[in-house]
Amino acid sequence: MNTIEGGVTAARGYLASAVCAGIRYSRDDIALLVSDRPASVAGVFTLNRVCAAPVKLCREHLRGGTARAVVVNSGCANACTGAAGMKDARRMAQITAECLGVPRRTVFVCSTGTIGIPLPMEKVEKGIREAAKKLSPEGGVLAARAIMTTDTRDKQAAVEIEAGGKAVRIGGMAKGSGMIAPNMATMLAFITTDASAEPRYLQPLLREVADDTFNRITVDGDTSTNDTLLMLANGASGTAALAPRGRDWRKFEDAVREVADRLASAIVEDGEGATRFVTIVVTGAASDEDAHRAARAVAESLLVKTSWFGADPNWGRVIAAVGYSGARIREDRIGISYDGTEAVRNGVRAPGFDLKKLEEILKSRRFEIRISLGAGRGKAAVRACDCSYDYVKINSEYMT
Amino acid sequence: MNTIEGGVTAARGYLASAVCAGIRYSRDDIALLVSDRPASVAGVFTLNRVCAAPVKLCREHLRGGTARAVVVNSGCANACTGAAGMKDARRMAQITAECLGVPRRTVFVCSTGTIGIPLPMEKVEKGIREAAKKLSPEGGVLAARAIMTTDTRDKQAAVEIEAGGKAVRIGGMAKGSGMIAPNMATMLAFITTDASAEPRYLQPLLREVADDTFNRITVDGDTSTNDTLLMLANGASGTAALAPRGRDWRKFEDAVREVADRLASAIVEDGEGATRFVTIVVTGAASDEDAHRAARAVAESLLVKTSWFGADPNWGRVIAAVGYSGARIREDRIGISYDGTEAVRNGVRAPGFDLKKLEEILKSRRFEIRISLGAGRGKAAVRACDCSYDYVKINSEYMT
Repeated sequence: MNTIEGGVTAARGYLASAVCAGIRYSRDDIALLVSDRPASVAGVFTLNRVCAAPVKLCREHLRGGTARAVVVNSGCANACTGAAGMKDARRMAQITAECLGVPRRTVFVCSTGTIGIPLPMEKVEKGIREAAKKLSPEGGVLAARAIMTTDTRDKQAAVEIEAGGKAVRIGGMAKGSGMIAPNMATMLAFITTDASAEPRYLQPLLREVADDTFNRITVDGDTSTNDTLLMLANGASGTAALAPRGRDWRKFEDAVREVADRLASAIVEDGEGATRFVTIVVTGAASDEDAHRAARAVAESLLVKTSWFGADPNWGRVIAAVGYSGARIREDRIGISYDGTEAVRNGVRAPGFDLKKLEEILKSRRFEIRISLGAGRGKAAVRACDCSYDYVKINSEYMT
Repeated sequence: MNTIEGGVTAARGYLASAVCAGIRYSRDDIALLVSDRPASVAGVFTLNRVCAAPVKLCREHLRGGTARAVVVNSGCANACTGAAGMKDARRMAQITAECLGVPRRTVFVCSTGTIGIPLPMEKVEKGIREAAKKLSPEGGVLAARAIMTTDTRDKQAAVEIEAGGKAVRIGGMAKGSGMIAPNMATMLAFITTDASAEPRYLQPLLREVADDTFNRITVDGDTSTNDTLLMLANGASGTAALAPRGRDWRKFEDAVREVADRLASAIVEDGEGATRFVTIVVTGAASDEDAHRAARAVAESLLVKTSWFGADPNWGRVIAAVGYSGARIREDRIGISYDGTEAVRNGVRAPGFDLKKLEEILKSRRFEIRISLGAGRGKAAVRACDCSYDYVKINSEYMT
């Protein structure tokens, strides 16, 4: 697997563009991503029971299994907008379909931004028409910037593998850095490939990859109303269709996971106000689910996150979070270490506990906490960031 | 029901004292509470699977159904201290029993403070012996101060009712204001009454009261390793034993709930760094459990709590938290109001949405958010506070 330049237009047969429609920002806020031929499509969406109109539309269009385009706006989430919001989302698909001359049901729509405000549809329509004229194979980076809300940098990744004797490329872009002030609706991610694969194989692959990557990060523990991950496979590489049990499937899966993993990392690293990036690895759990439960409780504990900000090797808060996570534990076997330096052994402070050394580790920008629960062989890892003054500042400043 | 002065020694037959043992603070840090005759006892404890040695000991002694004394230290949680910690907790009960000439199994032990540090037992033993000599019916307020960690004020409440033709008193004290830096282990509460009631009736009553009061508040969502609520009923009022279905049981239950409610309120009001106190009332839920789930998700959302700090009537974050809470909802029927001013109707911004008025409400120190889910008749209320710069400051400052 080789890292290559670019993002969603790194794979062959994809075009993208971006325009400023003036929805909220005075920079590009509409992105258009197009496959030059019908692509298989898979999608994973927010589990929030309050979900935005474009999410509902994507779920509907996903049933067709085919995508030609994805249109995205930032600045307005089109969430909690009722029947009018649903009509607006459909209209975005309709206009995109007309401009491109493709079926309406092959157009996917995503929105990110303020909740509860209607889309300024005149501006949006004009923007889409303009974007359709500016499509180019170099447009990936422009699209990656246009989907940002309070992200401080664009997030792209791409790799190349060999499959079926040909070079196959997988690229992607994402946005997200918290569920951002005043109420931006968080994570969007798009992965494109020129491999060929049927939707029925693509969907479980994407679900699994999402569970291992995007569902293993947390900034503030708030699940948004708009989270969307879409993957398109258009076959432009000319390889035969890939399928599970086929020779290159595993390689393909690894490459998709790699792209997703890099995008997920980029989101945590751009976490609102974050100063520290922490990987929490839980082992010895009764099941992988239990390990995930424990890791997530630590990652989302406000007390743990503020102690990271203060560079405090406060293992008491870590063990308390593990205790209330619901994961089965053997208290007298719990172990905790920071970057390999032991803090807890058998549920109590480790012999030779070295406070000075632990403090040094906690002062780094990046460190790993390993927690063993002593209850089995399950394991999981979650990536998180700290909770700083700036997080409170960003999220308490009134911006409606 | 009449409010009366005092706390745990407001009811007849109770004595208390406090001494400075120098465990961590240079103020009183050991409190002793004694009933002059055997009292029925009930207890509710942390659900954290990592629980402190004194919690384990209390659970054990609770089986006997009788209490004569409660000994409490602040400054050290005696949690994550292994077998040595268990031995120390037993020793605290043993010494107290010796000093008072009561059975060891009628002594209950509570600790609150730093996790993972052993108790300085020499100091503790000396402190207990001293405290046993200073017992007095006026000692309640001293005990309430000695159990504090980073609490900024003591928390007491007491009421009087008439039951069986006699005056019955119920009083209590509590401590807690977050799971406090560096890793203080949170909430302790003690309720005493001179009513008479068998443990088998007292226990379900206390459980129910706890569910309605202490389990309906949240500062930071972190469940500690030491949470303990104990209730003693010693019959010193001279009334006949109260029992469910008896004439005064309901009145008694209401009085206990009132004391617990006041103590629980006092904990939220002393929340670390808190500037706003918010009651979240959820109605129209599919069940009371669902209502509680939704209210708690809102109360614990970092995004919601920081928006309160910023006085931002950010209903998008509220509805997003409701959506991911797991509670069943009818999105197109959700309503949200702040102190009676409507913000959301049928899942979208309410007609006549008055931003200025909502901003004024959010600027108050105290307000209520009512959320109707449109899914049934279940309801619940949770009290919470905001997340301020000071919360981050208090919890990120290194204090090991």
